[in-house]
Amino acid sequence: MHSQFQLAAPDTGLAAALQHKIDRKTKPQGALGQLEALALKLGLVQQTLTPALTAPHLLVFAGDHGAARDGVSAFPQEVTWQMVGNFLAGGAAINVFARQNGLALTVVDAGVAHDFGAIGDGAVPAFINAKVAWGTASYLVEPAMSAQQCAAALEHGAGIVGRLAAADCNVVGFGEMGIGNTASASLITHCLTGVPLADCVGRGTGLDDAGLARKNALLDRALQRYRQAGGGDDPLAVLAEFGGFEVAMMAGAMIAAARAGMVLLIDGFIVGAAALVAARLAPALTAYCVFCHRSAEPGHRAQLAALGAEPLLDLGLRLGEGTGAALAYPLVAAAANFLNDMASFESAGVADKC
Amino acid sequence: MHSQFQLAAPDTGLAAALQHKIDRKTKPQGALGQLEALALKLGLVQQTLTPALTAPHLLVFAGDHGAARDGVSAFPQEVTWQMVGNFLAGGAAINVFARQNGLALTVVDAGVAHDFGAIGDGAVPAFINAKVAWGTASYLVEPAMSAQQCAAALEHGAGIVGRLAAADCNVVGFGEMGIGNTASASLITHCLTGVPLADCVGRGTGLDDAGLARKNALLDRALQRYRQAGGGDDPLAVLAEFGGFEVAMMAGAMIAAARAGMVLLIDGFIVGAAALVAARLAPALTAYCVFCHRSAEPGHRAQLAALGAEPLLDLGLRLGEGTGAALAYPLVAAAANFLNDMASFESAGVADKC
Repeated sequence: MHSQFQLAAPDTGLAAALQHKIDRKTKPQGALGQLEALALKLGLVQQTLTPALTAPHLLVFAGDHGAARDGVSAFPQEVTWQMVGNFLAGGAAINVFARQNGLALTVVDAGVAHDFGAIGDGAVPAFINAKVAWGTASYLVEPAMSAQQCAAALEHGAGIVGRLAAADCNVVGFGEMGIGNTASASLITHCLTGVPLADCVGRGTGLDDAGLARKNALLDRALQRYRQAGGGDDPLAVLAEFGGFEVAMMAGAMIAAARAGMVLLIDGFIVGAAALVAARLAPALTAYCVFCHRSAEPGHRAQLAALGAEPLLDLGLRLGEGTGAALAYPLVAAAANFLNDMASFESAGVADKC
Repeated sequence: MHSQFQLAAPDTGLAAALQHKIDRKTKPQGALGQLEALALKLGLVQQTLTPALTAPHLLVFAGDHGAARDGVSAFPQEVTWQMVGNFLAGGAAINVFARQNGLALTVVDAGVAHDFGAIGDGAVPAFINAKVAWGTASYLVEPAMSAQQCAAALEHGAGIVGRLAAADCNVVGFGEMGIGNTASASLITHCLTGVPLADCVGRGTGLDDAGLARKNALLDRALQRYRQAGGGDDPLAVLAEFGGFEVAMMAGAMIAAARAGMVLLIDGFIVGAAALVAARLAPALTAYCVFCHRSAEPGHRAQLAALGAEPLLDLGLRLGEGTGAALAYPLVAAAANFLNDMASFESAGVADKC
């Protein structure tokens, strides 16, 4: 395996001390439920009894999919660049939620089929041109990207995270935009989990029954073409075959973020597909991940099961953009805060169980 | 019914305009899941297309239960006043979460068996002495409170909310502290929903198997005493028989808050018992309520089903204090924020579905 994917799990030597600290807080043991496991995770990732989240940042990766022109989505392909424009103007859901919860936002052009022209360095949200190409090829007729393009996307992702780490960021959320990318995520999820393709395919941005049937037929065709060409379940091969540039760039960014000791906020189904690829390349990845919500897309369940993940929120969200990550961030902060700021039975003079 | 319990549901005349505004935001229809229904609720409660949450406040009501001395809890009764001290010192989970999420906090002595002495007006968190008595009587031998005490608690609750409304607060969260109050909530839940008592009883702060068996036996005895004395399912009778002063005061506060057009943040199982009483007295109440989380206490499911409620969080919390309400508050704010601040397809120049 490439050295860029080498990743060690956090040392668990502190686990007992962290658990003891959690258990002595003024509450019944376990009474904060999932937040207790999350506090333990934060402490282990940061290797401290007093984890602190600094300069939280949300990266939204945008890319276009050749297959979108073949009808896998309810929306036309130009919505990808139009929504990037909406992000840059501050009007999308992710802008609202990132602002509310104190996450800085950077929009990354991973491969949108549009020329965004020159966007100033001081723009808010920040914009990074990391365009690999003007959209992927259609996996209905050929691999979505070449191995070289896939490697470039992974490297760009790592580089972007490197900049955040240098700016004192230790918690990074992932979001995406790309018309057609639930279809891409469905194919990746099927190939990497073995769950039947039909169970990985959903309505995406809102297909009706006929649209869903068409999407299923198209993805089945794409899968057969891949299998007939000898395609297997190697994560990089699957990623190049079906991935969007935004998915590949996220996978590279995730591994780099974990290698830098960051906490990773994983959004829903498409970000989950990138996490699945990244975890196949670097199995220790999930120890750094907070799975933020359970998407309404049916294939998300297959991902979560494969990754052994229990998400924080289950609100029926299916928007992407990193909205689930931004909405869950206060819960992540709450886990750190209770660990740092709550009194213990001893410090508060409160009696323990009878 | 008493006029203090008269409550009209919000006028739904704005519902279509609110739904249209939600649907024209730059996202697929329904893609924000439960937050969309929540935004609609906020708009209806406030009778506006641009709901705003002002001066959010969390009230923690504390009270002691006579039955706690008979072994219904894993913790000794003095933990109630000790935890009130912890709240006042800022060291409890609710302090941490309320601070983080920008909720003001007021601790109310509804009936703690302890003298807190003189606490200054400028204390943070604020403290209100609304003590009805030094704890309730034990429902194992007699009604927990008299009808007069119950009425006083309801009125105190309404008065406390009146002060918040006068201070421009339009969103109020409810929390509680009282050793033994899951037992009280179990009895109330059984009487008002008809769900078998055993299905309403849980481990509370952490009973072991023997403790749970003892709790079940004690509550069964209390229920039989009530039934043999002719007790039925009148909400005020049930409340007086089994309720804590904190439960009664919350019920009164909830109805007053809804009458004032506030949004109510309902925490877990004990606050849910108060909401159940309040909703039986004033059936329109639930239209004003946001159910913040699903408690790990098994009886909470019976309450949620009876109230037709779908909570926002499901994190296995079982701490009380209003922690679930404080943790869910950013989601409530997010619902208002997306409704107010997101661009529409038209304003952003984004194409709608094919």
